[in-house]
Amino acid sequence: MTTPDPTLSPSLRSWVESANDPATDFPIQNLPFCSFEHPEEEYACLGVRIGDSILDLGLLHEADLIEHDHESEEGAGLCHALEAPSVNELAFLGRGAVRELRTQVQKFLLEGAAHTGGQKSRRIREKALFKAADVQLLPPAMVMNYTDFYASIHHATTVGSMFRPDNALLPNYKYVPIGYHGRASSIVVSGTPVKRPRGQMKKDDAPGEPISPPTFGACKMLDYELEVGAVLGPGNALGDAIAIADAEQHMLGLCLVNDWSARDIQKWEYQPLGPFLAKNFATTMSPYVVTLDALAPFRCPAYRRPEGDPAPLDYLKSDANERAGGFDITLEVSITTAQMRSKGLPPFVLSRSNAFRDMYWTFAQLLTHHTSNGCNILPGDLIASGTISGPEQSTRGCLLERTWAGRDAAGKPLPRTPIDLPTGEKRLFLEDGDEVIMRGWCEREGFRRIGFGECRGTVVT
Amino acid sequence: MTTPDPTLSPSLRSWVESANDPATDFPIQNLPFCSFEHPEEEYACLGVRIGDSILDLGLLHEADLIEHDHESEEGAGLCHALEAPSVNELAFLGRGAVRELRTQVQKFLLEGAAHTGGQKSRRIREKALFKAADVQLLPPAMVMNYTDFYASIHHATTVGSMFRPDNALLPNYKYVPIGYHGRASSIVVSGTPVKRPRGQMKKDDAPGEPISPPTFGACKMLDYELEVGAVLGPGNALGDAIAIADAEQHMLGLCLVNDWSARDIQKWEYQPLGPFLAKNFATTMSPYVVTLDALAPFRCPAYRRPEGDPAPLDYLKSDANERAGGFDITLEVSITTAQMRSKGLPPFVLSRSNAFRDMYWTFAQLLTHHTSNGCNILPGDLIASGTISGPEQSTRGCLLERTWAGRDAAGKPLPRTPIDLPTGEKRLFLEDGDEVIMRGWCEREGFRRIGFGECRGTVVT
Repeated sequence: MTTPDPTLSPSLRSWVESANDPATDFPIQNLPFCSFEHPEEEYACLGVRIGDSILDLGLLHEADLIEHDHESEEGAGLCHALEAPSVNELAFLGRGAVRELRTQVQKFLLEGAAHTGGQKSRRIREKALFKAADVQLLPPAMVMNYTDFYASIHHATTVGSMFRPDNALLPNYKYVPIGYHGRASSIVVSGTPVKRPRGQMKKDDAPGEPISPPTFGACKMLDYELEVGAVLGPGNALGDAIAIADAEQHMLGLCLVNDWSARDIQKWEYQPLGPFLAKNFATTMSPYVVTLDALAPFRCPAYRRPEGDPAPLDYLKSDANERAGGFDITLEVSITTAQMRSKGLPPFVLSRSNAFRDMYWTFAQLLTHHTSNGCNILPGDLIASGTISGPEQSTRGCLLERTWAGRDAAGKPLPRTPIDLPTGEKRLFLEDGDEVIMRGWCEREGFRRIGFGECRGTVVT
Repeated sequence: MTTPDPTLSPSLRSWVESANDPATDFPIQNLPFCSFEHPEEEYACLGVRIGDSILDLGLLHEADLIEHDHESEEGAGLCHALEAPSVNELAFLGRGAVRELRTQVQKFLLEGAAHTGGQKSRRIREKALFKAADVQLLPPAMVMNYTDFYASIHHATTVGSMFRPDNALLPNYKYVPIGYHGRASSIVVSGTPVKRPRGQMKKDDAPGEPISPPTFGACKMLDYELEVGAVLGPGNALGDAIAIADAEQHMLGLCLVNDWSARDIQKWEYQPLGPFLAKNFATTMSPYVVTLDALAPFRCPAYRRPEGDPAPLDYLKSDANERAGGFDITLEVSITTAQMRSKGLPPFVLSRSNAFRDMYWTFAQLLTHHTSNGCNILPGDLIASGTISGPEQSTRGCLLERTWAGRDAAGKPLPRTPIDLPTGEKRLFLEDGDEVIMRGWCEREGFRRIGFGECRGTVVT
């Protein structure tokens, strides 16, 4: 942060009163983009979250309250983006256009603006604002390509030690930002119920026992994965790589991601080509894309590699990235069971940490690696961090790790430690009716809190 | 084939003379769908290939030469499909609507039809027909999700033996149709040059040698993979599985696929989450979707599992599938080098076989497995077979296998056997300027030849 960005000044207040509450995720300094179904009409619209409300950008545009050059290509692009049903067209325009739009929207929402904006502005102000609780939110982007990474070294080490006790972290981990393609079609928005998947699974055979065949049925080891996703901006041509110095110009912003996982299906299917049906039954996105501009005060140095770790190869190296490639975001996962809800109990926190600071690879490195072979990205594509875990048990981002108790002296896994819930219920993995709630927010003295909202999903049969 | 389909009768002839040539891939009995750029206008259109020409279905529709019920939902769907730029909307309508459209198109193209169709039909006949060589073909579908399988047991066994000599076929192979998500954005149509990818690779360290770090540079082991793809039809709702008995109702037809692979990148990156940058730099599709109706005479029993192999689990079992789940297609891969082309030499055949008969899993099983966990497919999605190889070296569908010479008595890999080309050039993997040409066709007495055309790509730097 060399020059302070005036749109982030903590003194700014909005005429949307709920945005001035110090506890809100969505002050006028945030203004994340979303997609929602218009409550009266039946189409999807581009919106901005402010306090407890959603501002309909399409309507603002229709009323000609967003200035743009009617003659230029840029202006035509902005029109197109404001009429689009999701952030994809906006993402296509790039960081400069997004910044300009965010500034205009902020101006419209500023305390006092209503008095200066004239009668039309006052009328629109009422028509274009909906309570977020009253509208159906949609996935913010129409994700054409979804890539999931494996960037948390604590996650990779803990999970690796379960499957390969002598060989937890594979030799490529510290060189290659490991990733794979996820399923785009099954991405859903926060609040969508998640149906417990069915699939093949196979019990472990004791030594000397005959090999048992697999069975097909409902997954018994259903898990969540806490992740942060980057919604991508302008794409690259097939065959052209994106240099690390340019990588963040190709990102619109961040959201929360729950990459639901069926551990029993995963264990049996994943070799040699990686996870498939264990993951592609559902991936939940939070509804808001928080722009990199809004997150600027919360940047932090990239993970500092321990002595002895290799330096990244040249194409993944960048001083700027090392200085401020990370994000200091508090991430929390909580759960409610059907019983807890019927008793009116609040969500029970499963983990809370800033472990996202400690990703072995930054988003800039992930995107640069992704395109280093010439692979093309499209605006609105989603790349996700992989499960975010810290070293301590209370900071682990999935139940597979959270209930793992290590191994005994002989190397045999100890029984998993169930999580005790306030109702006396216990959880090793998710049961039907369980709701997983992920939240994320940034706080720093001298700045308003910037939040991501929630990424929720309830397991159903 | 219980009742013979009259559209497949070998006696049918077209007024497009080139379609009556017995050697054509595209007689009037085939009529595969494609997408092409209109040579005069600048938009993409839905077309049908006939002989050496493309018929513009959008124009036929505009001229009201395709009958449909203007009042019904089905009729509106067909209008929409005929105005669409690719086969996706048509795929959405399902096999019945596609069959009906194919029948109408055949009627329009039948010898004699021009005399009976009136003046308008004669005028359109000239306007709506383009020489295929004169138009820019596009990928036939806008592929939103691409899944690649690993269904050839000969391929899995040979490749497995290279990486895991004692453990070539993993224990899940005979139960789980192994697959993974490929990259949709980098799918290109036949004829698109393929840029040699760059990436991380690591040399094998000799025992006792210090471990060397990986390097970043141009791939040195670039390979093709011969595959057949199924372009999918109507989708399923997220959470609903597609039963094996219904699976083929969700397929529009087949095409050829070259799943280009960077073997050196693959070897270093693929554990534990599967192939990523080794594959996602390009995947080439042939331009024509050959309908399952046109392929009906060439169905054959599914692969007969050897004595001792387990039966498929119940959800993958189907008598009909076992009786006729396979396709008897001759597949051929050939190559030309820059030197060969400059000398006017014809393509050199690298492999030719009907090994696609012997997939361990049929397309119906692949699709049923894919959705068995509730994963949703979308119209126009692509699922591909994985590399198609037979047991003999001349039938292997990629260079990795084609030049593999096995191991010596001590288990050490023998030096690879280069392929000798007519110019005296040798190939272990692809060099810049090499063009790979895949072709596929079906032949059977009493039927016209049904072909797929070509799937071509030239390696460039």
